Amino acid sequence: MTTQQPTEPTARSSAHPEQDAEFLNHFRSMSQIGATAGGGVDRQAATLADGQTRHWFRGIVESLGMTVHYDRVGNQFALLELVPGAPFIALGSHLDSQPLGGRFDGAYGVLAGAHAVIRASRAADAQGAPAFNLCVVNWFNEEGCRFKPSMMGSAVFTGKLDADAALDTADPAGVTVREALEAIGTVGDFRVDLAAYLEIHIEQGRVLEDSGMTIGLVESTWGANKYEFVVHGEQAHTGATVIADRQDALLGASAMVVAARAVANDFSTPDAEVITSCGEFTVFPNSPVVVASRVSLLMDLRSTDPEALARADAALFARIREIEVEANVRIERGAEHIWGAKAYDERGMELAAACAEELGLSHRVVRTLAGHDSTNLKDLVPTIMLFIPSAEGISHNEREFTSDADMLAGVDLLTAVTSRVLRGEFVPAP
Amino acid sequence: MTTQQPTEPTARSSAHPEQDAEFLNHFRSMSQIGATAGGGVDRQAATLADGQTRHWFRGIVESLGMTVHYDRVGNQFALLELVPGAPFIALGSHLDSQPLGGRFDGAYGVLAGAHAVIRASRAADAQGAPAFNLCVVNWFNEEGCRFKPSMMGSAVFTGKLDADAALDTADPAGVTVREALEAIGTVGDFRVDLAAYLEIHIEQGRVLEDSGMTIGLVESTWGANKYEFVVHGEQAHTGATVIADRQDALLGASAMVVAARAVANDFSTPDAEVITSCGEFTVFPNSPVVVASRVSLLMDLRSTDPEALARADAALFARIREIEVEANVRIERGAEHIWGAKAYDERGMELAAACAEELGLSHRVVRTLAGHDSTNLKDLVPTIMLFIPSAEGISHNEREFTSDADMLAGVDLLTAVTSRVLRGEFVPAP
Repeated sequence: MTTQQPTEPTARSSAHPEQDAEFLNHFRSMSQIGATAGGGVDRQAATLADGQTRHWFRGIVESLGMTVHYDRVGNQFALLELVPGAPFIALGSHLDSQPLGGRFDGAYGVLAGAHAVIRASRAADAQGAPAFNLCVVNWFNEEGCRFKPSMMGSAVFTGKLDADAALDTADPAGVTVREALEAIGTVGDFRVDLAAYLEIHIEQGRVLEDSGMTIGLVESTWGANKYEFVVHGEQAHTGATVIADRQDALLGASAMVVAARAVANDFSTPDAEVITSCGEFTVFPNSPVVVASRVSLLMDLRSTDPEALARADAALFARIREIEVEANVRIERGAEHIWGAKAYDERGMELAAACAEELGLSHRVVRTLAGHDSTNLKDLVPTIMLFIPSAEGISHNEREFTSDADMLAGVDLLTAVTSRVLRGEFVPAP
Repeated sequence: MTTQQPTEPTARSSAHPEQDAEFLNHFRSMSQIGATAGGGVDRQAATLADGQTRHWFRGIVESLGMTVHYDRVGNQFALLELVPGAPFIALGSHLDSQPLGGRFDGAYGVLAGAHAVIRASRAADAQGAPAFNLCVVNWFNEEGCRFKPSMMGSAVFTGKLDADAALDTADPAGVTVREALEAIGTVGDFRVDLAAYLEIHIEQGRVLEDSGMTIGLVESTWGANKYEFVVHGEQAHTGATVIADRQDALLGASAMVVAARAVANDFSTPDAEVITSCGEFTVFPNSPVVVASRVSLLMDLRSTDPEALARADAALFARIREIEVEANVRIERGAEHIWGAKAYDERGMELAAACAEELGLSHRVVRTLAGHDSTNLKDLVPTIMLFIPSAEGISHNEREFTSDADMLAGVDLLTAVTSRVLRGEFVPAP
């Protein structure tokens, strides 16, 4: 078995070492695009590095016999037509990354999808006429760091977000999605209907690692309420302005961050944790001797338990009203994005479990705290979501790591699942 | 009396309307450089706009018969030599501003100094040989927003900060003071010894306005402890990372901001307020779905009462140690700048009070919460610091406002004080 991680135990020997080596070579090549000094990648959506990765991926899948198309919002489709006119089974994830992100998040799933498509199509040839066509999708802007919201491309594809609204979205420098996609030359007018969707991703948590399992069968997403706030104060001199005269936007925003964590702690139970985060927090004018006039921040609350989430949400907003008085600021509530906790298709989980058993891969049911493109796709078509382990659960970090053995096990499983789906075992053949 | 603020009562009629009109014309012309849409100015230290203001001021004072020189760190000296070889009395303040700052802060004092020097020299000619030479100083980088610390130029001049350390200081884009000063062409090797220093400035507080007084005689500075902190956490996925695994730098930093205000409230007394601020707070990597790995912030504590300040300081640091545990972060203490509460020269206050009486200007003793270049100068030479009112105490804000009448009253007073100092009434003639 090919592995460059000598500390990783290799649980199984491979039946196809050449295919494994090809996958790992592709993965290492891909990880060089936008590589950071800390071992990660920086390929934010529609940046030069994201464009380079998209063009690299185009080269890889074209060399594997696929054809590449883009839709209006830059979703990249690599098609392998097996049965002219038949519906498409899509495998996918995303090639964009966080700033100083890891090299596995999203990118692993797209590359695994390409390899699974090719391997499954070869097996299908041997088994007679397949019922579907296959494609691999690199969804645009899953990360949502440069352009908000996250999961943008899959949201437009599934009709949850208007395409023009997405294209008009500007980054902090004022560049729109439309301009950025045109600049990297990865936009078109392709349309396709899908019959099913499969995605594999690193777990970005430590459940699999802690339980010693290789495969996660994703049962449901957590519910997530995401809010944009702007705290309005009044710009003033830090030295000369007495406390009574201050309307300190930074004080108000800081109190919100502290309050959100307290709410999460208060409403978490052993059965259902409530999680809260503030990932973006921008102070204006952010000068050493100026009381902040404005802070914009994004805050979210997540839980597997819809009732716990609703209670925590109400408590947070009650606390925010108190903070407005205490800090003498006005807190404006902007856009919000609400994802309910939703289940994945049970038959898909059973099918994937059967495949894992056949392959001798340990597996368990897990939930996903993070959003994925499959969070959107599962509301449109039958969807299967699979996880492989993340070392220490570290993610959105250059130190993100998954072993070669786990990556290869994931490709094997995705291939087996794709083969069965091709034969009509998940969604009925047309 | 010339005034363009019809709502402002004019308390006195002017004895020299042409000189008043000239001052106001100069002030309005100066306010156009780096003007912002909101009625303020943006002339951060050694930017293009700061350079334009410096060159404009050079033109103004040269036309008034003065010669201009720069020292190594860009302090701008306009000399009016009345007695060859005699020591210099300096009047000054600063022409740099905050981002979106007001047009009065600093700039008023420099221009008032130039007019007072010219008027006092004319009066001195009529009264016989003066004992001193005069100069006006535009101290480099009083604001400290682009390059830290604030009051940089006067700190180097008074030997509190090493010139090379100042020149090596870089802005957030990596441009050093040395490079920025050379780029705007306002640097040299001038040296001068001063015998006394006079500064007039807007109050940036509301004591004068609330008490209906025109002139503030500054008695002392508040003590100020300024700290740079870096809060270290660990970058992680906001969705996928459970609370127990988080080392959230933003949570730790927010808790510090909240704690500092609580400490200020706890240690303030009716006699001595404790004030705290955090003006700069920068989150890294500041992406919507990433737990912050690092926050850098500047925090200060100020009070007129050294004991209250020391107690508040100790309480803040005790709380910071608790926050390190609660938020699971490491808080690194960086550079600090400590200014003790120090008195200005009592004889100078008496001299200024006598001049105000002669001119019929209402006056009272005040303290300054903000730092000024005179905070540094008073530790080197006998110093007089004067205030005129700020509307509603608003400062470091485009809406900063002082009436024409108050500005002109300040120039009259500064002229009268300068005349007496020229005659040896403050520091002995050589």
